[in-house]
Amino acid sequence: MEYDIVIKGGNVVTTESVSPMDVAIQDGVIAALGLNLSARRTIDATGRFVIPGGVDAHCHIQQLSGGGLMNADTFETATRSAAFGGTTTVISFAAQHRGDSLRQVVENYSHLAATGAVTDYAFHLWISDPTPETLERDLPELIERGHRSIKIFMTYDRVRLLDEQVLDVMMVARRYGALVCAHAENHGMIKWMADRLVSRGYVEPKFHGVSHPRVCEIEAFERLIRFSQLLDQPIMLFHVSTAEGAAAIRRARGEGIKVFAEACPQYLFLTAQDLDRPGLEGAKWMCSPPPRSVADQEALWRALELGDLQVISSDHAPYRYDERGKLSAGPNPDFKQIANGLPGLETRLPLMFDAMVSQGRSSLEKFVELTATAPAKIYGLHPRKGAIAVGADADIAIWDPDREVTLTEDGLHDNVGYNPYAGRKIRGWPELVLRRGEVIVADGELQARPGSGQLQLRGCSASMRPTGRLSPEFDPSVNFGAQLL
Amino acid sequence: MEYDIVIKGGNVVTTESVSPMDVAIQDGVIAALGLNLSARRTIDATGRFVIPGGVDAHCHIQQLSGGGLMNADTFETATRSAAFGGTTTVISFAAQHRGDSLRQVVENYSHLAATGAVTDYAFHLWISDPTPETLERDLPELIERGHRSIKIFMTYDRVRLLDEQVLDVMMVARRYGALVCAHAENHGMIKWMADRLVSRGYVEPKFHGVSHPRVCEIEAFERLIRFSQLLDQPIMLFHVSTAEGAAAIRRARGEGIKVFAEACPQYLFLTAQDLDRPGLEGAKWMCSPPPRSVADQEALWRALELGDLQVISSDHAPYRYDERGKLSAGPNPDFKQIANGLPGLETRLPLMFDAMVSQGRSSLEKFVELTATAPAKIYGLHPRKGAIAVGADADIAIWDPDREVTLTEDGLHDNVGYNPYAGRKIRGWPELVLRRGEVIVADGELQARPGSGQLQLRGCSASMRPTGRLSPEFDPSVNFGAQLL
Amino acid sequence: MEYDIVIKGGNVVTTESVSPMDVAIQDGVIAALGLNLSARRTIDATGRFVIPGGVDAHCHIQQLSGGGLMNADTFETATRSAAFGGTTTVISFAAQHRGDSLRQVVENYSHLAATGAVTDYAFHLWISDPTPETLERDLPELIERGHRSIKIFMTYDRVRLLDEQVLDVMMVARRYGALVCAHAENHGMIKWMADRLVSRGYVEPKFHGVSHPRVCEIEAFERLIRFSQLLDQPIMLFHVSTAEGAAAIRRARGEGIKVFAEACPQYLFLTAQDLDRPGLEGAKWMCSPPPRSVADQEALWRALELGDLQVISSDHAPYRYDERGKLSAGPNPDFKQIANGLPGLETRLPLMFDAMVSQGRSSLEKFVELTATAPAKIYGLHPRKGAIAVGADADIAIWDPDREVTLTEDGLHDNVGYNPYAGRKIRGWPELVLRRGEVIVADGELQARPGSGQLQLRGCSASMRPTGRLSPEFDPSVNFGAQLL
Amino acid sequence: MEYDIVIKGGNVVTTESVSPMDVAIQDGVIAALGLNLSARRTIDATGRFVIPGGVDAHCHIQQLSGGGLMNADTFETATRSAAFGGTTTVISFAAQHRGDSLRQVVENYSHLAATGAVTDYAFHLWISDPTPETLERDLPELIERGHRSIKIFMTYDRVRLLDEQVLDVMMVARRYGALVCAHAENHGMIKWMADRLVSRGYVEPKFHGVSHPRVCEIEAFERLIRFSQLLDQPIMLFHVSTAEGAAAIRRARGEGIKVFAEACPQYLFLTAQDLDRPGLEGAKWMCSPPPRSVADQEALWRALELGDLQVISSDHAPYRYDERGKLSAGPNPDFKQIANGLPGLETRLPLMFDAMVSQGRSSLEKFVELTATAPAKIYGLHPRKGAIAVGADADIAIWDPDREVTLTEDGLHDNVGYNPYAGRKIRGWPELVLRRGEVIVADGELQARPGSGQLQLRGCSASMRPTGRLSPEFDPSVNFGAQLL
Repeated sequence: MEYDIVIKGGNVVTTESVSPMDVAIQDGVIAALGLNLSARRTIDATGRFVIPGGVDAHCHIQQLSGGGLMNADTFETATRSAAFGGTTTVISFAAQHRGDSLRQVVENYSHLAATGAVTDYAFHLWISDPTPETLERDLPELIERGHRSIKIFMTYDRVRLLDEQVLDVMMVARRYGALVCAHAENHGMIKWMADRLVSRGYVEPKFHGVSHPRVCEIEAFERLIRFSQLLDQPIMLFHVSTAEGAAAIRRARGEGIKVFAEACPQYLFLTAQDLDRPGLEGAKWMCSPPPRSVADQEALWRALELGDLQVISSDHAPYRYDERGKLSAGPNPDFKQIANGLPGLETRLPLMFDAMVSQGRSSLEKFVELTATAPAKIYGLHPRKGAIAVGADADIAIWDPDREVTLTEDGLHDNVGYNPYAGRKIRGWPELVLRRGEVIVADGELQARPGSGQLQLRGCSASMRPTGRLSPEFDPSVNFGAQLL
Repeated sequence: MEYDIVIKGGNVVTTESVSPMDVAIQDGVIAALGLNLSARRTIDATGRFVIPGGVDAHCHIQQLSGGGLMNADTFETATRSAAFGGTTTVISFAAQHRGDSLRQVVENYSHLAATGAVTDYAFHLWISDPTPETLERDLPELIERGHRSIKIFMTYDRVRLLDEQVLDVMMVARRYGALVCAHAENHGMIKWMADRLVSRGYVEPKFHGVSHPRVCEIEAFERLIRFSQLLDQPIMLFHVSTAEGAAAIRRARGEGIKVFAEACPQYLFLTAQDLDRPGLEGAKWMCSPPPRSVADQEALWRALELGDLQVISSDHAPYRYDERGKLSAGPNPDFKQIANGLPGLETRLPLMFDAMVSQGRSSLEKFVELTATAPAKIYGLHPRKGAIAVGADADIAIWDPDREVTLTEDGLHDNVGYNPYAGRKIRGWPELVLRRGEVIVADGELQARPGSGQLQLRGCSASMRPTGRLSPEFDPSVNFGAQLL
Repeated sequence: MEYDIVIKGGNVVTTESVSPMDVAIQDGVIAALGLNLSARRTIDATGRFVIPGGVDAHCHIQQLSGGGLMNADTFETATRSAAFGGTTTVISFAAQHRGDSLRQVVENYSHLAATGAVTDYAFHLWISDPTPETLERDLPELIERGHRSIKIFMTYDRVRLLDEQVLDVMMVARRYGALVCAHAENHGMIKWMADRLVSRGYVEPKFHGVSHPRVCEIEAFERLIRFSQLLDQPIMLFHVSTAEGAAAIRRARGEGIKVFAEACPQYLFLTAQDLDRPGLEGAKWMCSPPPRSVADQEALWRALELGDLQVISSDHAPYRYDERGKLSAGPNPDFKQIANGLPGLETRLPLMFDAMVSQGRSSLEKFVELTATAPAKIYGLHPRKGAIAVGADADIAIWDPDREVTLTEDGLHDNVGYNPYAGRKIRGWPELVLRRGEVIVADGELQARPGSGQLQLRGCSASMRPTGRLSPEFDPSVNFGAQLL
Repeated sequence: MEYDIVIKGGNVVTTESVSPMDVAIQDGVIAALGLNLSARRTIDATGRFVIPGGVDAHCHIQQLSGGGLMNADTFETATRSAAFGGTTTVISFAAQHRGDSLRQVVENYSHLAATGAVTDYAFHLWISDPTPETLERDLPELIERGHRSIKIFMTYDRVRLLDEQVLDVMMVARRYGALVCAHAENHGMIKWMADRLVSRGYVEPKFHGVSHPRVCEIEAFERLIRFSQLLDQPIMLFHVSTAEGAAAIRRARGEGIKVFAEACPQYLFLTAQDLDRPGLEGAKWMCSPPPRSVADQEALWRALELGDLQVISSDHAPYRYDERGKLSAGPNPDFKQIANGLPGLETRLPLMFDAMVSQGRSSLEKFVELTATAPAKIYGLHPRKGAIAVGADADIAIWDPDREVTLTEDGLHDNVGYNPYAGRKIRGWPELVLRRGEVIVADGELQARPGSGQLQLRGCSASMRPTGRLSPEFDPSVNFGAQLL
């Protein structure tokens, strides 16, 4: 049998092993793995790693912030940037603001992505307005259609849900089979700290970090974990930033509570000190939660190795460092007026590869697990996405482990205009990227048409299913027979 | 020297020891402890334990509930009941409802107590409306005047504070030196559960317990503990009901967070099953949090022995089982419409003595510590109250360890009309009670005049003081120099 | 290209996924995975799972017990039994008794295996006599030759090592790169309990369990974990039997100590009650540690899911229930005189499949991980063994998920004569087994020649390497410069 | 009534309070506490604290070390030194070496003390040779006679017990009512480390610390805790030195295991750095376990506050820094040849007072609890010893809180010749010491006759009693009915 394409001579990386073999592609799908395969077209991967295209499960694209600011990237610029970094699938947000129809929101974002995206994509359903229409009509329908993840906020005035609303959303997710992802920080603490800081004149970007106390993350994790325990509904804790947060997750998992968690490069590579720059420049490194300390970085690395945290996402939240972005509030903003977020779609894989493989912190298998396979599995994209396996989409990055790149302010392909990691020297970079068997990046050029990315509808993954161990309140044998599910 | 009174022949109990000695009283104060003391008047305590009059640090007296219902006891009936049970000092609430001036509230309750109380008393400042006037004027002034404890609620619609308000109150307490006591349950969970139950027709009193999931206590404890950690401000967690709640407290204390906690007899002697009665009768046992399970009782007993919990209070919250009380919402209330609370001022000491001493669960010293000395110390009443010691007020219960009493519905001296422990047989009962050297109960008769109780203004106790170990956000050496205290 | 064999139509299971694909074999190795592959010989696997042949990392074969009793199985009977159960690689013991030359011991066992084994095999170096010759000459040489695992005992009079000897062995393992596996139970407790029991007449098999207190496992785990922490040397804790033991492992791993652990079917499917039979029959279920309780089983299942325990082995330790085996001490033995151990090589995979897959406790991927891939990786057999992957040995079990088998006393292929799981009904059974591309079991017949199994020499796996995080005593920057490694 | 003596004007300190009152003494016993007491003799304590004479529950007096070296102090010099430091009761050792009759050992030490001691005293029964005669005859008899504590060693070649022997001793203690105190360090680790160090030429005193790894304490604590859990027999862990050791104790207590623990000044005030001196001088600070780090000190202080550790003892183990003591092995000893131990009887109270009270780490009440009341209670000396209470022996130190003392090499009253705390400046010192109403130290002079101290026979304290919560192996309802207690 002659295949369409064969990638020859590379070392193929899966979560299980790194082995020399050829990868044959037919009709956009991996048709065979083997020794000495042949095809109409051969791609030489000698001396390269052949890895699954990255799955970035957390990025904000072409989206209004809670504060009403449009972020810097369109689906075209964001996914272009992703592709250059070796990522072939992104999950961004269909962001409902209060008053919006969730159904309409999904339609709008689907339209934007369908005309712009060069990678494949899916949506988290972002719920800010859990009206009966949302909870009873739109959400069930959208979940069943294949939008199997929900984003909720425990902080930010315009988007946060009250505890009882969180429970409402979780219960719908439980019933229809979706994962609830959370920005979990304690709203009151942040508000209180920020007001106290600003009222005392501590307004520079570096005080953004102080305004998000470590315990505000820990507290919110603990709270959401208790909700998860009560309802037996899995949760995903986004962007863990503290050692104690990671420890709370470990403890919960040890108790059998189904908690997943995410790390992002900014919490592995940056610290609070990065915000301490003259004038407003620290704004470039402002994100929520804020970067913490070197000790936290170490704790997060350990938690990743232990499996307490399972995925690496970028939390790409792009704002330009100009009056259309971070500085939109005028010349002298306090930190509360500066949009939060960093670009990261393109640098996610290279930063992680450099640290985990080139510098030897971990293994190639784990690198692939964290950046592609695990997010694909947890979010229901697997086995189509996230793996080099027979039958999977041929989403592949051919990775040059020896290429050295010094990151620069303007070397990326997004529309942000700065790079929070500029100056950093990295070893290992993708040299060719395929999406469903089509080369989309080669020779430093984008070769895919905007809109060629496809929406990925998803099934209910094992991660999304309740454990079946009911808390006493939901167990009719101990709660006087009440049927509460 | 001849004293006014000597109590002869008893075994005097302190937190340190149980020893035969005489207690001499002069001018209402304990003037000497010794062998062979003599006085103008001798009280024979042969075969009796001479213990410090109980300090009940948590009781609701002559107070409107959040729901607007006046509870069943006046200061006269409540403190009479307390006195009959061996308690000589109570701390009740100066309960601010929204719109109230805290200063005025304290004045009103002071007036009521001054004309009714037969025991000594103090007030917790109950804050429902943390306006600038409250926080900046009244609260500092009242704390400094000697009202050194504050009560906040994390649940109940009409009285609960938001997280940022809790932080505001804690910060004032930290600055002026007061303890913040909390009814800590997660509001959203309770509301959500209660609505779900009622909407499905589960309305009987027993479902009250189901509506307060175990995790709603654990969550709120964890949250308040994090606030305490952030601000380095001591807290007192009222009425711990679950094993996991006690474990969270132990964990926090082990981390050096200054957390105190209270147990109440209802969580040591009752369970959720007690609410499972025909018709509405279960309402008699409804309190918040609800009684849990036998395993929780055991965990609480253990936590008391370990010092994780330090005090026993009654949380006396008296509502009659009639249309003026529990049944005020009409003939077919759902559990949400039934006032929460149990009477307990009078039975607190006997129940605890019976379990700890007569049944041998613990020791006399620990009994006295939990019911008198520790609350006196923590709340700033010590050394005047809570101990049989030279210089202390002669607040003394002479306890007959052999007297057997079977509790009955109408055997108490409060105004509640039922006894949640009716039918229980108890060994050990106070036979004579002195308050500042004056016999107030003897021969089953009250011998004190309403209004003879005195207000106890308090100093800042060691328990009220911060540890001085600042969280990083408040430590100028790590938070970019911001001065936030 | 035409392959030797293709297995068509099956669902191939890896740790990562379950997917329909064909498996092509060339020269005993998996040459390709793909759709529509063809070969000279086709094996139809329609409706079957194609799984990696099991790797059983803990079995006693043709070995003298500490007590001098030869066990029931030769390499031929043991590996035959393994093969019938779907296992294609075993790790048994080269058991040094005191006075033996380790080098000679390995030679002897190698000879026995080379003439008998039908599966591939490797050896754990069992050290009972850590003489200088053993530690300084034989052990380094054998490790470097590819015998990369060591077995030590913390109990049993004739084989146990003293703590300082354990440290000696661990240090050699650290230096040359080997994993130290331990039978970790507290010797003194067992001895003391057993003596006490026997001296009071409690001699029946069921008291064997009582003589191994739960805490004797926990204690020994904690001790060995501390040794591992001190020397930064990985350990493998064999046959975890208690919930507390599993919890200790979880705690250690969370602290960054490199601890691996094993579960065995007997601790997942049996309890102490199984030993409670008339007469001596309970002896059939005697093993060390003893089976515990249903709650322990649940804890072990959870620990397996969490990754706290990583592998499932049989601990096959075969003694016939007759005078050549369990009953060799005469007609009225006490439990101390009865050999410990159960057969399990053949039932390991079926029991686990039934529980994990047929009954739905877990997933196919996890089943394969626990029974094949993880042991292969940890013990250095991967990538040759333990996976269906291009380049791996074609060790494959074709599994019929629907076949129902009721286990009987005499239905197995070992030489033990009884089956501790007799009477159990199981769904799922291997129907064809290949070893290096050769069919060794088909149609219920063994098709391989004794001695056709091969010795597997192993490299130093990632699991065997120290973490590099030195304890203070070994860190020259804090221990006054002493170089102790 | 006129008393023999009244101590007037002081502030009397108990575990419960600090209050101004007079203390009246009659016939050597405290006869009254009160205001305005009078007596034939008045001692003015104005501006002073009146505290219970210290109880030092761990000191080696006139005793052969395991290594056969007689220590530096006789009962006369040791108790004289104790008295000058405010301590009025000591518990030293009746040290059985192998081959000794325990009964005879007690007689011998009793004789030595009876002729030398100026403070009261009791003995721990030190068991090195648990022969049947010891276990079945002497130990029961001695316990019942009032020697209610036993010392065992888990390390040191000549004195250590094997695990099964520890269990034997604990079982006798359980049956007859005694506390088992342990020097708990892992023998094998120490031996192994020491050999490794010495063989590599690391022989200076500072390497003594390295030879006792932190984990050797943690391990042994965990092991003994498991024994305690198995047998439900209380234990006392002597001289906790590490944060992790303290944490293990906290964990055990939280699980309901009856574990007590001791801190000593050397672990609160010294570190490993103190041994790092030129030549052999570091030998002066050598003790086992060795002093650790500042972080450990902080952890121990916290554990003391939390109640995880309950007592402060000196572990006075006096060896002169000369050829009769530390340097007895010749001019170039390695650290293994140097006797371990520090003097501490005299400085214990002043060091603790200075840190806890003068420097404000804690409170006066806690100071008295740790140094007198708690040891008296735990070891069965209370209520006679350890408290200023009516009926107690008039063992009293009158403490000048303002006196500043700079410790010097030769300022103590023992026979050791150096002071490990020399150079330290301390505020607070005893100025007058009474023992059973007799002034034994005043004006810097000893006023008591050698031999005037009395042996204290003791009853079974609450601390010595099992909890009654049996482990499953000892619970006939779950262990097939075996009666093992």
